[in-house]
Parts: sequence; structure tokens; C-alpha cells
Amino acid sequence: MEYAVRGPLYHKAAELKKQGKTIIPCNIGNPQSLGQKPITFYRQVLSLLEYPQHINRERILKKKLSNVNDEFCISDYVLDFCDDFLVKMETGMGAYTDSKGPPFIREAISRYIDKRDKVMSNTGVSSNPDNIFITDGASEGVKNILELLICNENDGIMIPIPTYPLYTATINRMGGAQVHYYPDEESGWKLNKDILNKSLRTAKQKNINVKAIVVINPANPTGAILGRNSIFEIVEFAEENNLVILADEVYQDNLYGSEFFSFAQAIWDYSNISLFSFHSTSKGFYGECGHRGGYFEVRNPFDLGNTNRNLIDILFKQVSVNLCSNTVGQSLIYLLSSPPKEGSDPYEQFMNEKKSVLEDLFSKASIIKDAFKQMEGMECYGEIGAMYLFPQMTILPEGKTDFDYCMSLLEETGLTTVNGTGFGQKEGTSHLRIAFLPPKDILKKVLPEWIDFHNRYIRM
Amino acid sequence: MEYAVRGPLYHKAAELKKQGKTIIPCNIGNPQSLGQKPITFYRQVLSLLEYPQHINRERILKKKLSNVNDEFCISDYVLDFCDDFLVKMETGMGAYTDSKGPPFIREAISRYIDKRDKVMSNTGVSSNPDNIFITDGASEGVKNILELLICNENDGIMIPIPTYPLYTATINRMGGAQVHYYPDEESGWKLNKDILNKSLRTAKQKNINVKAIVVINPANPTGAILGRNSIFEIVEFAEENNLVILADEVYQDNLYGSEFFSFAQAIWDYSNISLFSFHSTSKGFYGECGHRGGYFEVRNPFDLGNTNRNLIDILFKQVSVNLCSNTVGQSLIYLLSSPPKEGSDPYEQFMNEKKSVLEDLFSKASIIKDAFKQMEGMECYGEIGAMYLFPQMTILPEGKTDFDYCMSLLEETGLTTVNGTGFGQKEGTSHLRIAFLPPKDILKKVLPEWIDFHNRYIRM
Repeated sequence: MEYAVRGPLYHKAAELKKQGKTIIPCNIGNPQSLGQKPITFYRQVLSLLEYPQHINRERILKKKLSNVNDEFCISDYVLDFCDDFLVKMETGMGAYTDSKGPPFIREAISRYIDKRDKVMSNTGVSSNPDNIFITDGASEGVKNILELLICNENDGIMIPIPTYPLYTATINRMGGAQVHYYPDEESGWKLNKDILNKSLRTAKQKNINVKAIVVINPANPTGAILGRNSIFEIVEFAEENNLVILADEVYQDNLYGSEFFSFAQAIWDYSNISLFSFHSTSKGFYGECGHRGGYFEVRNPFDLGNTNRNLIDILFKQVSVNLCSNTVGQSLIYLLSSPPKEGSDPYEQFMNEKKSVLEDLFSKASIIKDAFKQMEGMECYGEIGAMYLFPQMTILPEGKTDFDYCMSLLEETGLTTVNGTGFGQKEGTSHLRIAFLPPKDILKKVLPEWIDFHNRYIRM
Repeated sequence: MEYAVRGPLYHKAAELKKQGKTIIPCNIGNPQSLGQKPITFYRQVLSLLEYPQHINRERILKKKLSNVNDEFCISDYVLDFCDDFLVKMETGMGAYTDSKGPPFIREAISRYIDKRDKVMSNTGVSSNPDNIFITDGASEGVKNILELLICNENDGIMIPIPTYPLYTATINRMGGAQVHYYPDEESGWKLNKDILNKSLRTAKQKNINVKAIVVINPANPTGAILGRNSIFEIVEFAEENNLVILADEVYQDNLYGSEFFSFAQAIWDYSNISLFSFHSTSKGFYGECGHRGGYFEVRNPFDLGNTNRNLIDILFKQVSVNLCSNTVGQSLIYLLSSPPKEGSDPYEQFMNEKKSVLEDLFSKASIIKDAFKQMEGMECYGEIGAMYLFPQMTILPEGKTDFDYCMSLLEETGLTTVNGTGFGQKEGTSHLRIAFLPPKDILKKVLPEWIDFHNRYIRM
């Protein structure tokens, strides 16, 4: 098992850093490691939840300090929010919660999902809080579901290539079979039933029992955004072949313009398709990777065959082995689902911070994509989504791989990327993934160095 | 897979609570759910780490409010502690850390372990920060190690019976073989080589390839504390049979009088015994279950046979699939390893809180143990350790199991315990586990009810 985003390039970068070299860690979508500021509202709340004695102290402070400016104090809205949260949380931040997470947080997630998907009373299918599991980041949930699906070495899971290594690593660990499918790079990583059927046929010829299809949208590592057509082709394909869908939608707030269309919404008319969708507090405009907040939602839980067991109960037992996910991650999930109300004190600042982070991300992506135009043979397809660009390198010197390229780029410029081989790629192609996170002043310095490096390297 | 501490009794309690019944959740070691207060120093630090803007605000406040009492403000020691932490943490609380956790926290743990074990320059073996992995609670670490050890259905792991269900559940999930050994209840759950050899022989007769022995000390569910003799017998047994030791030492601060003796210390003279020891921030006097802080330390990493791979590197790859454990849990691990310095501002309060929690736990355990004397046939062996009592019920009505007993006790008194069958027990015996956590005023009310219930139930 190799885990590319924490593989040899990561270790080399750590080694160079120790020697004093400036490292720009673009090997992973970790925005706060590159200076992205946390959302103020979120952190004010978390801070007070950890030390509730200060909620009332803030109220006393305001009286004592009537002549200080507003920014010195925490707004009443935040204080009331914390009081309300702690009443609902009952046992505070230091106690184990229910294995799935506290009911009130799962209810908030359900309302949030319904709002996102514009579920009306007369159209759409509502989310069910009982089918939501709060997890330590999205990865934990993905591992639980793959573990549930894979019983033996013939059980196959369809995964896109390139893919996020969590999937390949976990399928291998569980002893299942990877079934690769290849989104069409040149058309912006589009998908259709032909592509999917071709992959399924090949698997069936090998006697693989294909159980599920993984879709990452917006995608990691390519940053591609699936159009509604691609999504509906996947849904029809899943129905025709009785496949479970695993929708990794952790980048659902990273579309930069177009509107996110969820798999939950796409399967409204298909009560026979089982869906597991995953979300996290690590990405979007929040970027709270270190806090490991995540959840997954189950729609149309599949039947467990000849038993009278219920899928949700089995999942409950499975997650109970860890007792519960961390309460701070849980709180962030609640915060994500409960943004400040329009007109409330923190609202304007919250909206400004959100807008600023997303605009900044898009603008940095565009700057990097523009720089590719000055690198010979660097082709980057598709819209900008997620936190990544995944350009193809059509020219590499004889005998050199994309790994060699990324290693040399790191050694020369400090820029840490990940080679396409780390995610899988169509045979004969070479890529790299870069997380578009460095501040603009750093980009301004490093991109010319990269362009220079590139055009020298390919002629080496 | 059944997970007793979150099994039918837990679900019944939740149902009764919904109906308005007062529930006393003693089914799990979750002290803050029963009113135990968090350690002030820990929470003041966590609060400021989440919102570092307030570190400087606290300094300004002190100047502005020169006439308020000290308790209104946070001490300079805490503020400096936070500043120092955030300098070392570099990327704050919102970024993924290294997969093992930040080096400075692992170094602090190593110093803490050496201090605990009284490693001197001329005696003892020092802990190595490179061999420490910070995890989301101890459970995650245990699962990782069992996964590494179990390759096929013949691979066996020795576990004590009764045992914490994490072990049985995980061995089953990984498809390995449970090899049970039975500490001697009547002697206070003592262990010796005869007991261990008997268990090993039986396993070998079934062609099980026994790879490791799990020891929980102080024990869960029995609360028993292993004496040095028992510990050395285990160590010798492990050496003679080339077994890895998994030492679950999460209750190392719950001994209430006697001194903790670690397996790390017990194997100082055995460089050929591989040891994994687990610790957590959920127990002790800290009781921060919800924050999911944990770590494991590897001593004498075993050889991976015919490969040139290194065990620590393999573990790094394995934990990298989750990227990192949550940063708040990590911070608590650091806090656990870095208590306030003697003479510092928070020192006295910290020591008082620590003392008070531990004295309170011991006193509550003693009160419950005393109540057993008024319950006919309720026999509780061994010293008081961990957070549990595990009495044997030598009298039960014809046809009734310990599960029936616990269910009736719950329905009648609201007291939620777990039946001995949930942990495994010697055939023909019946037990229950109770976490000795309820406040004394609740105990004062519920214990007479329990005594009354018991003496009626056994005559039913």
C-alpha cells in the first residue's frame, strides 16, 4: 500500500525543510497550512464551547467595558448560539456522544441537505436524520462502507481513474477488487454509460462481482465538475446494474460559479438505488482539516438478503467500536449546517469571509492555470473545481516519469506536488496534481521559477 | 458483531429516557456525562488555541481591568503556554498535521513516559518519539495494530476473558482467531504462566498461529490491577513464545493508591519483545472522552521477515490513509504530557482538581462495593482500579441470565450497566459491569433501590 499524498515527495519535502529550504506544500488540500484563515464565527463558537465559563464572562465584560468597540467583544448572537448548543449537547464537549453523533446535529444536517437540494413539500425526497452518521472526517465513513461492501476477493468496487488514494488503499486493505473506469480527460473528464459499461464488462469477464461505484464530485485529483448529464448517466447505469453509489461530495462548496447538483437529488426518482454520500468540514470555504469533522448520509439502505438485520443497525454496531467521532468535529458539522442568520451580528462578516476565501481560491487556480500556458506541453482540461489542478504533461524527457519531474520540481523550487501515478492514470499519460492554495505573493514568486524549470526540464 | 457497551441495554436506556425516565448511564466509562468537571487548565488552553485572537485580548483585558479579581482573567502562564504551543504547531488547529502527529507533541509524550517510568541516564530504556503515533482515541491505534498482525484466519491473538469488546469485535472483523485466557477471579484476577500456557496449548492444538497477547491494565471490565509478579510472568511468557505484547494502559492514572507499573518498564531487559502500548485522554483524572485523544508507542518494532520494509514505515503508511488524528485530541495529549509547572499560577488549582477527581472516583467505587455486601451472592474480587466494578452474581433465579438482570435493573431504577456476557466470562458464571461514576447524591438514592431490587430479584 502506497499513499501518494504522504509518499516519497512528502518525505523529501520534510527532509528539505529540515535543511532550511522553503517548502510550499501543494501535495495535499490543506488550506490553513498555506495561510487560509479560519471562519471567525466557527472559531468563536468552538472557543466558547471548550470553556463555557467564558460565555457569561463575555456578557459581564460588555457591561464593564461599555466604551470599547464591538470587535473587542463577542456578539450576543454567538453567545446565545453557544448556550443553545450546550443545552442541546447536554453533556458538553468532553463526553462520548451517541455512536452516530447527537440527534440534534443529525437533524441540523438533514435540514441543511434539504435546503441545499431545494426539497419542497411537494417535490423531492427529504433527508432522514436516522440515516446520518457523523464521522472523524469523511475518510472514516468511506472506510466503513467499503468494509461493509467487501466480503471477499471477488467483490469489486468501481473507482474512477485517476482516483483519490483512500479508495485504492482501502479496497486493497479489505481484500476486494478494484474496477477502474476512465472519465474522458479531453472532454473535461466527462462520463457516460459507454465508459462505465466497458469497465463493467471487463470486470465481469474476470468473474468480479461488482457491487458499487465510487464517484468523486467535484473530483479529486482532477478538480473536474460532473455535469447533470454525466450524473444522470451514472444513476441510470447504477440502476441497470444494481450497484450501490458511493458519492464523495466533500468538495460540494468548491464549484466557483456553477451550482452543485447532489447525488441525493439525482436519485429522487429511484427508490431502488442505495446511496452513501460523504461530506466533511475539511474543504469548502471552511477548510478545517485538522478538526476531522465529517458525516455520511444513507439513502435507500439496501436489503441484507436472507437475514432480518437492518443496514442502519449494522452500521451502528460497526461505528460503535470507536464509540463516537470527536465532539469538536461534530460541532463544526453543526456550524456548517447552521450558518449565522441573515441580519444577525456575525452574518456580514461570515458572508464576506466565505466570499473572500472562495474568490481567492478561484483566482489562484486561474493564475496557476494561466502559467501552464507558458509551459510547453502542459495541458489542463475541464472546469476549475475542488482544490486541485491535474494537468497532463505531454512532453517529458526520454526515461523520465512524472514522479521524477515532481521530485526535481520540489528540489529546485520547494513546490511539493504529487505525480499522476500516485492517483492512477491512463496508460502512457503523465500528470501532476497541485492544490491551488498558496497565497498570491508566493505564487508570483514560484510560478516563474516553475515555468523556467519546466521548459528546461523537458529539454533535458 | 455485538458491541455490548452500546448494545440492547444502551438502546433500551435511550428509549426509556425519551419516555421521561431518569437514566444513570453506568454502561460506559464516560465521566463527564455524569457531571465530572473538565480540568480547568486543559480547557482554558483549548479555548484559546481555537481562537488565538483572544490570547492577546486577555493581556489587554488585564490592563483595562486592573481592579478585578484574578479568577476573572486567564493567567499569564496559560497565555504563554498557548503562544508557545502555537509557535510549535506552526499551522494552527485547522490544518492536517503529520500522519503520526506533530514531532513536538511526540517528543513531549516521550519525556512524559520516561518520567513516569523513572528512566535515569544509567538505567532504563528511553522512549523514542519516532515510534509514537497519535491517534483518535486509543481504539484507532488498537485497530491498526490488530489489522497489521492478522493476515489470515489462523492468526490468533490472546485476549483476557472478560475483555473489552473492542478486541473481540476487531479480531472478528479482521478475520483472525480469538485465543482466550482467564485471569483468576477469586485471587483478584491474578495471572501466571500456567494460565497463559494452558490457553496457548489449546490454541496450538487447533493449529492457530498465536502472534500476540493483549493485556489491559488496569483492566476493563474488571477494574483489576496487575501486580508486578503477574506482569513479569506475562513478559516471560511472551518472550518464551515469541509473542508481541499489546498493552492497553489507558487506565494508568486510575490506580487510587498503588503505583502504576508499565509494560514499557517491564521489558527494559528484553530487547527481543515487541511492545505496543496504548494510552488515551479519555480516562484518568482528565476524562476527556469526547475529544478522542490517544496515542500508541512501539518498543522493539518487530522484523517484517523476508522484506526490507520497516515496521514504523508500514505503520506510517497505514495511518496516512486517515491523514491525521484530530488536532484537539492531539493538543490534549500534549497537555497530558505537560502539566503546569510546580509553583506556576495554575499549578495549585490543577493539583486540587486532579486530587479531587481521583479521590471522588475511589470513594464512589468504595460506596458501591460496600452496597454489594447487602446484595446476597454479589461477590466483587480484587483491588479497585480503572473506572469499573465487575461483581459476580452467584445467585440468579432459574432461567434468568445476567442480561435479564441488567435489563430489569435498568427498567426499575434507571441504572444502566452491562451484563458480563457482553465481555465474555468463565462458563457458568454471571457478572455485571458498572462504571463507578455517578455523583454521590445520585448513588445515595439509587443504591438502596438497587439493594432492594436485587434481593427481590434473586428470589423471584
